[in-house]
Amino acid sequence: MSDINSDITLFNELIEILLKEEENNPVADRIEANKLYDAVDLSLNDSAMMDDEFKVALQNVLIATPKTATNLFFNQLFGGRQSKAVLGDLLAVMLNNSMYTYKVAGPQVGIEQEIIRKSCELIGYGTQSNGTFPTGGSMSNYMALVMARDAKDPECRSKGMSKPMVIYTSKESHYSNAKNTSFTGIGRNNIRHIEADSKGRMIPEKLEAQIIADLNDGYVPTYVNATAGTTVLGAFDPIDKIATITEKYDIWLHVDGAYCGSVIFSEHYKHLVKGMEKSNSFSYNAHKMLGTPLTCSIILVNDKKHLHNSFSIEADYLYQTDGDDFNLGKTSFQCGRRNDALKFWTLWKSVGTLGLKQIVDHQFDLAATARDYIKNNSDYTLYSFDDSISICFNYKNIDPTILCTALYEHQITVVGFGSFNADTFVRLVTVNANNTKQDILNFFKVLETFVEENPALIAK
Amino acid sequence: MSDINSDITLFNELIEILLKEEENNPVADRIEANKLYDAVDLSLNDSAMMDDEFKVALQNVLIATPKTATNLFFNQLFGGRQSKAVLGDLLAVMLNNSMYTYKVAGPQVGIEQEIIRKSCELIGYGTQSNGTFPTGGSMSNYMALVMARDAKDPECRSKGMSKPMVIYTSKESHYSNAKNTSFTGIGRNNIRHIEADSKGRMIPEKLEAQIIADLNDGYVPTYVNATAGTTVLGAFDPIDKIATITEKYDIWLHVDGAYCGSVIFSEHYKHLVKGMEKSNSFSYNAHKMLGTPLTCSIILVNDKKHLHNSFSIEADYLYQTDGDDFNLGKTSFQCGRRNDALKFWTLWKSVGTLGLKQIVDHQFDLAATARDYIKNNSDYTLYSFDDSISICFNYKNIDPTILCTALYEHQITVVGFGSFNADTFVRLVTVNANNTKQDILNFFKVLETFVEENPALIAK
Repeated sequence: MSDINSDITLFNELIEILLKEEENNPVADRIEANKLYDAVDLSLNDSAMMDDEFKVALQNVLIATPKTATNLFFNQLFGGRQSKAVLGDLLAVMLNNSMYTYKVAGPQVGIEQEIIRKSCELIGYGTQSNGTFPTGGSMSNYMALVMARDAKDPECRSKGMSKPMVIYTSKESHYSNAKNTSFTGIGRNNIRHIEADSKGRMIPEKLEAQIIADLNDGYVPTYVNATAGTTVLGAFDPIDKIATITEKYDIWLHVDGAYCGSVIFSEHYKHLVKGMEKSNSFSYNAHKMLGTPLTCSIILVNDKKHLHNSFSIEADYLYQTDGDDFNLGKTSFQCGRRNDALKFWTLWKSVGTLGLKQIVDHQFDLAATARDYIKNNSDYTLYSFDDSISICFNYKNIDPTILCTALYEHQITVVGFGSFNADTFVRLVTVNANNTKQDILNFFKVLETFVEENPALIAK
Repeated sequence: MSDINSDITLFNELIEILLKEEENNPVADRIEANKLYDAVDLSLNDSAMMDDEFKVALQNVLIATPKTATNLFFNQLFGGRQSKAVLGDLLAVMLNNSMYTYKVAGPQVGIEQEIIRKSCELIGYGTQSNGTFPTGGSMSNYMALVMARDAKDPECRSKGMSKPMVIYTSKESHYSNAKNTSFTGIGRNNIRHIEADSKGRMIPEKLEAQIIADLNDGYVPTYVNATAGTTVLGAFDPIDKIATITEKYDIWLHVDGAYCGSVIFSEHYKHLVKGMEKSNSFSYNAHKMLGTPLTCSIILVNDKKHLHNSFSIEADYLYQTDGDDFNLGKTSFQCGRRNDALKFWTLWKSVGTLGLKQIVDHQFDLAATARDYIKNNSDYTLYSFDDSISICFNYKNIDPTILCTALYEHQITVVGFGSFNADTFVRLVTVNANNTKQDILNFFKVLETFVEENPALIAK
């Protein structure tokens, strides 16, 4: 067996190669899926490999892997890397604590709790608030739904589903909402997708009308999932108005801020989540707007008793010392749990809350740059709106599905498409705060050059 | 903002310090939970920190964090580190791919699939098998339960829970089983904890009797969770006999091998999971016996259609190119998903399947060393059995809860206690394959020295 020092040396050699590749070749050469196993040696075999052969194999994998940290990657709602967060996550790998107990995680428990405490403060939650780090935005939505279900019917935990519950979200919300209704035993038929306005925001009046109709039909309205940053348009549901409705009908309100909940760090943009302090739970992904490595999701709960009610269980073999407040396994879905907190803490600790604000504000500045460019160029059509870091557009009326696939297949830039109502368009996200305005303008330049060199695209 | 190169340099400086600390001070100085925030600066503030101040703060956190990779850490069902796996996980942090689509994960998709394919082969699953990487053992159990529920009642996905389902597991199984019945809407009252024999293994006859009783009472038997390596004793349920029963009554059989499912890599020990090929699903955690960093859980499914049925959904904005077999988000609980596969692949690729066998066999050798020592020393009482890497014992009749807490509070060694039937005992696990026989003998030596220096423990 090799030792840790020589593998750390190998790590340093390989990332030198990787970082050079990112600079020289920001979009990795694409391998067609059906040729993958022939193109790269991914095979696992009985015998050990020689060190130098192994290094070559691993290097080939690294070079062929899509690069998500470069200035030509715009495909997902994450991109780039905050290096102080990378540092924290590299250290988390070395430390390898599991977050269930204070005995085995020690100060890492305090790190997680400090992030949660400060986040609750920013939201305006009170002294009974707390939270945890789920494994992603889907899991954050899921934990909120389980708490809502159990709050509405406390016997559900022990006796199982028995009430005809229904839940609500906008038709622009994340697909995990539908999956989660299935996972919890509520059933996908019992999710109501509420209409959105012309800017992609849930219409509160439609929500209330649907709740009244459901009550009249004997259903039990249980949960509303409002979105802070919808997947396609990056729109913000009107939380303040929605909260008035959920309070009136005694329904759990969760704010899914996976994509853009990080606006809580910016005095300029937190008005987009106005009313958030009236919600029952709120989640955001630091691995999206804040640029930490995947995954770093946080769910905050206005009253921590719901976390305990839905997620705690006795396990004497595990929880042997220290108080419940320090044994985080009592409020998580999981038992063994990776340390997703340290990477966010190293970032926040080093740049300060003001540094996080700058990261957030910069993304909106980049979005404004992109929108201005589009508005000032008649070859483009804009489909998205201010106060969003998703810029949706078409260019010379080219079919966006064909354009995005061609850009990807020719390794020009990696970007996706989306739809809203009857329109389909390219979706450029400015979530990578490493990018400069020049990087955004360069995106349009490489796109235009590619189309110029491939005029057939326009004809299609 | 700092740049990635300087933070990689800082990483190297800090892990040099960390590795030295692990050698010189294998049990970190303990900080009482209620004094944590005074003892270490964990605060998050508005302003950025100077680089040198930040380095000191981070160094203090590292030194105060419980060390899980040293030869005096025996507290959890993981410990130590396989350096080739650490290398892979460090690279995963740098690459930062999300595993939902081939477009953004590329060859990493193939890496995950190759691990799954080879694991299915080892189990004896057929050509329709597949799997995914859940976020831990609890989630593996959960995914299996959701598939079982949906297989028994395909309408559950859309209409919600309507049948009076019951599920079965041994009373020695993991606590996630009870939590999961609540999460799925089945309800904790509807889990049957089947009696175990004197060695902690589920009694098949008791299982069948309970199923018959439930059928007579109008319940719908849905799922059996058999354990390969119970949490306390490390016992293996008799899968072969249980499979005969689940086949007879058409019940989903999941093998929870989170702790010891990795015996599939050893010709010597795979007889402990005999009959596994007859199960519907099987999970194991490479972050336990195989020493990868947290988390690395794998669930394998005999017929992949169940993964699709329960976990897929359409999401056109996401799944834009490449076939379903390469878009792994279609069969996972999550949307965005961390790359937990690369660390296991780098280990497996470098040491080969035979190297993994050696890792597994070595842990059983270490366990035999510990059991022999105990058997040959009349001050000890042994409570566990052959074919287990959990060694349960008491020393000089000292209350094990008091002993383990004292060892922890005095930073002697970190080890936990457990219970089986009326007995409570110290539970030593030999899951850290970095350890030598000398390390195991040293554990007993430090324990004995500590007791000698603290004779009051015996009186208590």
